[in-house]
Amino acid sequence: MINKLIEGIKKTEAPIVVGLDPTLNLIPDHLTRKAVADMGESLEAVGEAIWQYNKGLVDAIYDLIPAVKPQIAMYEQFGIPGMIAYDKTVKYCKEKGLVVIGDIKRGDIGSTSTAYAIGHLGSVRVGNTVLKGFDEDFATVNPYLGSDGVKPFIDVCKEENKGIFVLVKTSNPSSGEFQDRNVDGRPLYEIVGEKVAEWAELHMGEEYSYVGAVVGATYPEMGRILRDIMPKSYILVPGYGAQGGKGKDLVHFFNKDGLGAIVNSSRGIIGAYKQEKYSSFGEEGYALAARRAVLDMKEDIASALN
Amino acid sequence: MINKLIEGIKKTEAPIVVGLDPTLNLIPDHLTRKAVADMGESLEAVGEAIWQYNKGLVDAIYDLIPAVKPQIAMYEQFGIPGMIAYDKTVKYCKEKGLVVIGDIKRGDIGSTSTAYAIGHLGSVRVGNTVLKGFDEDFATVNPYLGSDGVKPFIDVCKEENKGIFVLVKTSNPSSGEFQDRNVDGRPLYEIVGEKVAEWAELHMGEEYSYVGAVVGATYPEMGRILRDIMPKSYILVPGYGAQGGKGKDLVHFFNKDGLGAIVNSSRGIIGAYKQEKYSSFGEEGYALAARRAVLDMKEDIASALN
Repeated sequence: MINKLIEGIKKTEAPIVVGLDPTLNLIPDHLTRKAVADMGESLEAVGEAIWQYNKGLVDAIYDLIPAVKPQIAMYEQFGIPGMIAYDKTVKYCKEKGLVVIGDIKRGDIGSTSTAYAIGHLGSVRVGNTVLKGFDEDFATVNPYLGSDGVKPFIDVCKEENKGIFVLVKTSNPSSGEFQDRNVDGRPLYEIVGEKVAEWAELHMGEEYSYVGAVVGATYPEMGRILRDIMPKSYILVPGYGAQGGKGKDLVHFFNKDGLGAIVNSSRGIIGAYKQEKYSSFGEEGYALAARRAVLDMKEDIASALN
Repeated sequence: MINKLIEGIKKTEAPIVVGLDPTLNLIPDHLTRKAVADMGESLEAVGEAIWQYNKGLVDAIYDLIPAVKPQIAMYEQFGIPGMIAYDKTVKYCKEKGLVVIGDIKRGDIGSTSTAYAIGHLGSVRVGNTVLKGFDEDFATVNPYLGSDGVKPFIDVCKEENKGIFVLVKTSNPSSGEFQDRNVDGRPLYEIVGEKVAEWAELHMGEEYSYVGAVVGATYPEMGRILRDIMPKSYILVPGYGAQGGKGKDLVHFFNKDGLGAIVNSSRGIIGAYKQEKYSSFGEEGYALAARRAVLDMKEDIASALN
């Protein structure tokens, strides 16, 4: 799957993943109104509005980008109807040829991590039938519980030809509270990065490993160090745009081959129509505004990398 | 909600939470066979078998214990039908008067943690209607992303009168890989424990805080230290039974008032019928075997504490 992702990045010339992170205040009113008119003030209506919103976005941008990253929390928030919208979104994006990175940040102990890995990346056998749960292509994984929380994901990836991104240094302001703590003279995120590098070397696609890492755009200097520590890992870079990361901050996350990183933007794209800059599209034009924002992001990153 | 939990512990004289962690190999054959006969070899059939299994267990033990802890991974594994079984289980347990601890180990950055917190402990407003997603009473939370990943959960708990257990030292063999790393002369889990203690003091129920901690029964010495560091936090103790923790290991997790800890057992209870000791109950008697195992666990813990 990492090979497919890299192929998509080369083909679209866009090391970009769009975060499909719907919130009630991002969904255009006309979609919410219609869903509520049809289904009442219910979670089912919210699920339907999310699905229509996502479908509009995906139809408008799928030819420009290699991948999407739905943040499962934004769906889980609405209970079962939200999860159904997540499931439909994943399936639809895959139909459109997009690589789907499930931003699930799961991580637990042995058999429980196996269950998460199976649910999101693997399959179960019931009698003679092989069935799949959510079936994303990649998942993000939390390493706090150690190797035996991460390895079950790697095992499933190996079997199913999928991949993971392990949280190393997250983009949020307080990520340093534990991740930056000094461990034997070095910050914890470096120790986690070394572990990722070990796993990565043992689990290679063609040029890169299917064990990648998450490192926030908001910490470019740490990105540079982690880039060197994990040469074979793709880095998923959140924090661009709405969280404050700029094109020029991204240079350090890439390798000399121009590969090695994929930059996420969520609100900056899916809520573009709310920005002054794209306001001429109007609410009904939210999907075209998103398309314009993807093109602008592509240019911003390309000019920073040149 | 922490007050309700403590009240339940006192009333049942059982500082015990039963982990409802169904796996295909724990569900008795007759339940799976019936579900497959009705619904084919499908995830829906698995969801139905899980639900019937859980219902049988809960009916047999709800009067003996204060709380249950469904591990969401075991449900998520089966996609949407699994999540529906989770949802039904949570609702049913609450109807039976049990406190429900959702073992979800979520944790993300700011607004995303808020979404998880809302989905599991809070509510959303759609128009004039207030709706709830999964609506557990407590949730487990992963602290790797720092305070701004945990605080949104605390905020929702405060509003909704609910609680959390923050992962401090997990029960698995490789938990030490990052959690035990030496930070400025002390292990990381102590630093996290101190953070939990800070949060706990600011968010009190009556005797205890609604910000608790998870510390594995498999590390009793660390349990003793963490007990002192977090005097106002309830400790949720996994790892008893199947993972190797014994009654006598548990002493350190309790305070002098006999309170302060609640011990989880999952397979040891819900799969009791598979143990030599309870084999006379047979597969059809799985729920009665579970009842017997709860009574034995209660005795084991009581005699260790005396």
